[in-house]
Amino acid sequence: MLGLPHPHAGMNSAARAEALQYWLFYLPENPNMAVNSPIPVAAELKPVNGIEIGYAEAGIKKPNRKDVLVMKLAEGATVAGVFTLNRFCAAPVQISKDNLAAVKAGGKPIRALLVNTGNANAGTGEAGLANARATLDALAPQLGIDAQQILPFSTGVILEPLPVEKIKAGLPAAVANLKADNWFNAAEGIMTTDTQPKAGSRTVTIAGHTVTLTGISKGAGMIKPNMATMLGYLAFDAKVAQPVLEVLVKEAADQSFNCITIDGDTSTNDSFILVATGAGTLEVDSVDSAEYRELAAAVTELSVFLAQAIVRDGEGATKFITITVEEGESVEECRKIAYSIGHSPLVKTAFFASDPNLGRILAAIGYAGVELDVAKINMWLDDVWVAKDGGRNPDYREEDGQRIMKQSEITVRVKLARGAAAATVYTCDLSHDYVSINADYRS
Amino acid sequence: MLGLPHPHAGMNSAARAEALQYWLFYLPENPNMAVNSPIPVAAELKPVNGIEIGYAEAGIKKPNRKDVLVMKLAEGATVAGVFTLNRFCAAPVQISKDNLAAVKAGGKPIRALLVNTGNANAGTGEAGLANARATLDALAPQLGIDAQQILPFSTGVILEPLPVEKIKAGLPAAVANLKADNWFNAAEGIMTTDTQPKAGSRTVTIAGHTVTLTGISKGAGMIKPNMATMLGYLAFDAKVAQPVLEVLVKEAADQSFNCITIDGDTSTNDSFILVATGAGTLEVDSVDSAEYRELAAAVTELSVFLAQAIVRDGEGATKFITITVEEGESVEECRKIAYSIGHSPLVKTAFFASDPNLGRILAAIGYAGVELDVAKINMWLDDVWVAKDGGRNPDYREEDGQRIMKQSEITVRVKLARGAAAATVYTCDLSHDYVSINADYRS
Repeated sequence: MLGLPHPHAGMNSAARAEALQYWLFYLPENPNMAVNSPIPVAAELKPVNGIEIGYAEAGIKKPNRKDVLVMKLAEGATVAGVFTLNRFCAAPVQISKDNLAAVKAGGKPIRALLVNTGNANAGTGEAGLANARATLDALAPQLGIDAQQILPFSTGVILEPLPVEKIKAGLPAAVANLKADNWFNAAEGIMTTDTQPKAGSRTVTIAGHTVTLTGISKGAGMIKPNMATMLGYLAFDAKVAQPVLEVLVKEAADQSFNCITIDGDTSTNDSFILVATGAGTLEVDSVDSAEYRELAAAVTELSVFLAQAIVRDGEGATKFITITVEEGESVEECRKIAYSIGHSPLVKTAFFASDPNLGRILAAIGYAGVELDVAKINMWLDDVWVAKDGGRNPDYREEDGQRIMKQSEITVRVKLARGAAAATVYTCDLSHDYVSINADYRS
Repeated sequence: MLGLPHPHAGMNSAARAEALQYWLFYLPENPNMAVNSPIPVAAELKPVNGIEIGYAEAGIKKPNRKDVLVMKLAEGATVAGVFTLNRFCAAPVQISKDNLAAVKAGGKPIRALLVNTGNANAGTGEAGLANARATLDALAPQLGIDAQQILPFSTGVILEPLPVEKIKAGLPAAVANLKADNWFNAAEGIMTTDTQPKAGSRTVTIAGHTVTLTGISKGAGMIKPNMATMLGYLAFDAKVAQPVLEVLVKEAADQSFNCITIDGDTSTNDSFILVATGAGTLEVDSVDSAEYRELAAAVTELSVFLAQAIVRDGEGATKFITITVEEGESVEECRKIAYSIGHSPLVKTAFFASDPNLGRILAAIGYAGVELDVAKINMWLDDVWVAKDGGRNPDYREEDGQRIMKQSEITVRVKLARGAAAATVYTCDLSHDYVSINADYRS
């Protein structure tokens, strides 16, 4: 796994050089590489009109790392988000939800996001809320807005006090370098145990209007989002009414960040934020319009890309696994079974070992808590039919299973023969490096 | 971790020599050692009147291993069991349930158990049922009983056909060496990835009658029993009416095998069987008697010992963790939270690393799916008060957490301040060896 970066089809030599430099920079600290995940190239990340980004190295946990990020939104931008359902949700999550609710209640619009890494400000009680507010109070006058118009986000260690003074000290530098083409720096600025930044851009034409979308995400462990993921931000330059954006963020999250799992641990800080800067020419006022459908498709596609990038960079991941459960009575039961497979440590270690010990997958289906008639269940690994009518397919040959298990990308497909619902979950394998990374992460 | 066996208080020199020989025998194949788990000593395992045990080396998966076990029960014995709720429950589990049901419907009593390791006979469909029945048909005439009077059990790899001929070929040897003091051999005969046999004996006096109880268990991975565990057998020589024994087996399982987890994977073959041989002088006909309460206490205590032995020998385990959740509204919600902590790979790797990264425990409490007011939650590691009213206890010092985390036995205690219910779950850490064992298990 170590050594050269992934070969990168379609990359020009300058981009390749940049990617290589990137790898050389990160390799000493993070020897693990993501599974077939394209390394974002700064020059290919498109600025989105109406949003500027600045960053600082505030030394929150370690020196010489981008760890404070400010995203400034144009007047007229709308913002919607989905957040973790973890009851121990972090102080910044609570404040972000409050500030978004204030907008809906008629308050001033959101005009900035403030992100720090190195400390999650979770499990910090009342003091955590006060600390998060103190950072907003410090940033607001520098941007000429109210503190309530800023959404705060934190990611890092739980149960430790937020180093407020360090963050405050870093803010002027972040504000000073606000600019439109800082997306690559933003993607780097939100990394924790990630081995590479995650970012992507798309351009779509909808009803004759060009819309630019750019998004970033982070996360590699404590990943089993429940309504959202660790951190994901996606901005585009159409103008979208607030109620429409709120539908859109849920729709996109449900097909992307809500379909991934690395270790089944739902974070205290999951947040996925959609920003419609309104600086472009497209306007979307209704979810019943053709424009909405096209915009939703583009947002969802980019969200899936960003969510998959998190799994591909899963802590210690060497394989990217797609689990599709079909012919269920409901989407919910399909998801339950897909997550049961995706969370099983025995299934995940078998993938790591490239060992077609596929009875483990059946066991995970069996304990998913769905009242199945197992005699109707069929299961495939890519195109190899493994289990037929609840037992081993008589035509299944071990060498065929072995061939698929050796691949770095594998699809598990399960058919329940109960109905027409389906669901897909993306996950990775469980390797020695997962244990190493999480045994060492804090120390 | 490697090297000498655990020092064993109270062991005489002969017993110690036997234990050492045992370790030297097993070490080359299984370099992992169980956490503070007493090595059973053959001479200390008490025969139970009314039950004889025979074993054979049938070469089911590997040569020169005890892998077939026959337990013959006296006339008048009663038998009750609890079995996995995995929908892909193994063929032998289905047959055991059928045969127990036949007894309740007025059929002949159960007179023998047949166990094989090396193959789970799960995910094997109709052929699996036929194969299991073929082994019973072969054993029945050798014991002079009907096939329906035998309960079959299998443990090992899933999705592979049971090697019926090998098992049948091994049966005469197992029948030939049937004897009362074969419990240590029985404990060895049901091992798979276990690093040591698990067995224990107790003697209690109830209403002036001496009752001898001996039990064995196995399992080290795919352990999150749902009604029972991989395999557990406990026999005693009182006479217990069938309906009473059925209450007793559930009561004991709920406080022992249903309170453990290693990796959250519920096996296809979990079975816990209670045998009352009836060969002693105590008779228990009602659950409302003082005798029942005393017998239940003894059975439960030994069941907890056998269940904990499985966790202590958890694949790759280096720590034994007790998780107690108190002051809940219901036992169910306390168990939900305890399992959420016990299944979190991040919590388990922190234990492995002796890293007091205790925010991970709060995160796991938060995503357990219980509608908690986190501001009321308090958490301790042994006697160290870590989280107070939902945040970090101001008096908590990192070095105190560090001191506890370095221990090989740790108790996590959570208080919810919602009610009077409580639950305890036993688990282990997640180490490199768990990944190694499960990446290599089949090959």
